[in-house]
Amino acid sequence: MSHSATTKMTGLLLRQLGPRFFSTSTTLGSAMSETSKFSRPLGMEWVRIRNFNTSSAWGAGEKEEKVAPPPSSAAGKIEVGGGEKGIVSYWGVSPPKFTKGDGSPWMWSCFRPWETYKADVTIDVKKHHEPSNFMDKFAYWTVQVLKYPTYLFFQKRHMCHAMLLETVAAVPGMVGGMVLHCKSLRRFEQSGGWIKALLEEAENERMHLMTFCEIANPLWYERALVFAVQGVFFNAYFMAYLASPKLAHRIVGYLEEEAVNSYTEFLNDLEKGNVENVPAPAIAIDYWQLPPESTLRDVITVIRADEAHHRDLNHFASDIQCQGHELREYPAPVGYH
Amino acid sequence: MSHSATTKMTGLLLRQLGPRFFSTSTTLGSAMSETSKFSRPLGMEWVRIRNFNTSSAWGAGEKEEKVAPPPSSAAGKIEVGGGEKGIVSYWGVSPPKFTKGDGSPWMWSCFRPWETYKADVTIDVKKHHEPSNFMDKFAYWTVQVLKYPTYLFFQKRHMCHAMLLETVAAVPGMVGGMVLHCKSLRRFEQSGGWIKALLEEAENERMHLMTFCEIANPLWYERALVFAVQGVFFNAYFMAYLASPKLAHRIVGYLEEEAVNSYTEFLNDLEKGNVENVPAPAIAIDYWQLPPESTLRDVITVIRADEAHHRDLNHFASDIQCQGHELREYPAPVGYH
Repeated sequence: MSHSATTKMTGLLLRQLGPRFFSTSTTLGSAMSETSKFSRPLGMEWVRIRNFNTSSAWGAGEKEEKVAPPPSSAAGKIEVGGGEKGIVSYWGVSPPKFTKGDGSPWMWSCFRPWETYKADVTIDVKKHHEPSNFMDKFAYWTVQVLKYPTYLFFQKRHMCHAMLLETVAAVPGMVGGMVLHCKSLRRFEQSGGWIKALLEEAENERMHLMTFCEIANPLWYERALVFAVQGVFFNAYFMAYLASPKLAHRIVGYLEEEAVNSYTEFLNDLEKGNVENVPAPAIAIDYWQLPPESTLRDVITVIRADEAHHRDLNHFASDIQCQGHELREYPAPVGYH
Repeated sequence: MSHSATTKMTGLLLRQLGPRFFSTSTTLGSAMSETSKFSRPLGMEWVRIRNFNTSSAWGAGEKEEKVAPPPSSAAGKIEVGGGEKGIVSYWGVSPPKFTKGDGSPWMWSCFRPWETYKADVTIDVKKHHEPSNFMDKFAYWTVQVLKYPTYLFFQKRHMCHAMLLETVAAVPGMVGGMVLHCKSLRRFEQSGGWIKALLEEAENERMHLMTFCEIANPLWYERALVFAVQGVFFNAYFMAYLASPKLAHRIVGYLEEEAVNSYTEFLNDLEKGNVENVPAPAIAIDYWQLPPESTLRDVITVIRADEAHHRDLNHFASDIQCQGHELREYPAPVGYH
């Protein structure tokens, strides 16, 4: 079959699959960008009607005073209220109202004020775990071998590269967290906080992707590539994690080292002006508590710091197990972002 | 093969599998119970060295002042420090030190002060979603059919029943969260907070189980049962969620309705004195911010409130999809516990 014919058929296939597997709308993203000026905070302190850790404040008695349009309605996308009271009111409980330091309403439903943080940009971005034993070397070379095709494929298209990277990087945390969760249930034993730490990692990587989605819009073949890569990588990593968690964590450690390197290249090209240093999207400014005038360079800097943190966390997890201990024996480093 | 022979072989098999699949040690649990008096807070306010949402406070510059024994060392189980500085120090970052209102150190590594909450016990525990269409009826009867064998098996052994229930109830949230996470990555679109809401549900159910582990110790055949049930249920629910998320959420909604009912029965038998109303374990007092003198009755009451919350959340999720919407279009009810 000729190449053009194949392309046509793939295109057709994707138009069919589109609604089922891929999102073809970017309404949410664009709507949020439109309101980005509005969303930029003066100070990053945030105000919640109640203290976040005394949930009883949501008792029926107090719900009435707290009725308010859900935060995300500010994003212009989610039509809440109107004809669908039955489901919108969450069985009679109204969504809490969040505001930021400047009194403007919180516009994100995908993350809440207490999940925002300032990334630790002082973290050492050059740190490298020297492969000492066979397992380390195997993990190291696996990543090296996987790395080159992507560099060849993306060349200097850093944004596309970063997007694919994040769709992959968000998988191991979720797989690890899920496996440890099921293990904790089966063995009736505590997790030492590692389930949360790994799920936090997955969530953080996903937020990187959400940030890039506000800047660039993936093409259909990039979506198809991500679709294929996820299918393969998720299962491969799941098997690896069942077979040898310490190897799996080591591989992710090296994967994150490479992520740090590729973001360093991204920053260099931003410095040189090869990539336009666009203003930071609203979602990034809110998530990383960045100043309103931040640019793409600031965003890539904090994202790189996150990757460096994940690198350390995964090497740490592997080290624990290499020394014959179980993860749960050591408290997981949560809240270090 | 005779029954006794089968039992012998199963016992042998389990002794072999034990170390691999099941935890045979309860050191952590017992160690924590020993220190439970110590762990009981005067007031439930908690103090953290830094504001939880300004993570940059963990920058290298401040690490030195914050060096402290990890909270979980207080539980007497996790030997940190000593000869293994390399891995214990988490690549040069010392674990943060948490203290409670009374100044005593935070003793749990499986959850942190900011994850504790007061359950909303005012929630309606009698609410029932009337099965209207075929899908609802199918979901309802699936749960009814699954329910009776467990009632027959456990009879009045509420604690064992609750334990098995929680090992099952902690699965759907994790599966749903994982599927939505991967979908969000594939489709480059935001989640509306549903990933977090479902993972929170899974974590909460797991904490219920951790609480019961402090009171009762499952027997080997109960561990084996949980092992088998998880293997079947995880995959079945995963398939169901891929095939029809709205059906999956509806089933969980009804499952949680049954959980509420069985906890109500548990409470009735506690009232009648058929079950001893033992003091609440330390982990429950810290997790639900209960007063120090709380008993099992208080714990079951808050757990029932949690289940009622999950019931509403899952029926809500199903309702959204039944009306032809996607979950991400409606902000997820997070932080309602």
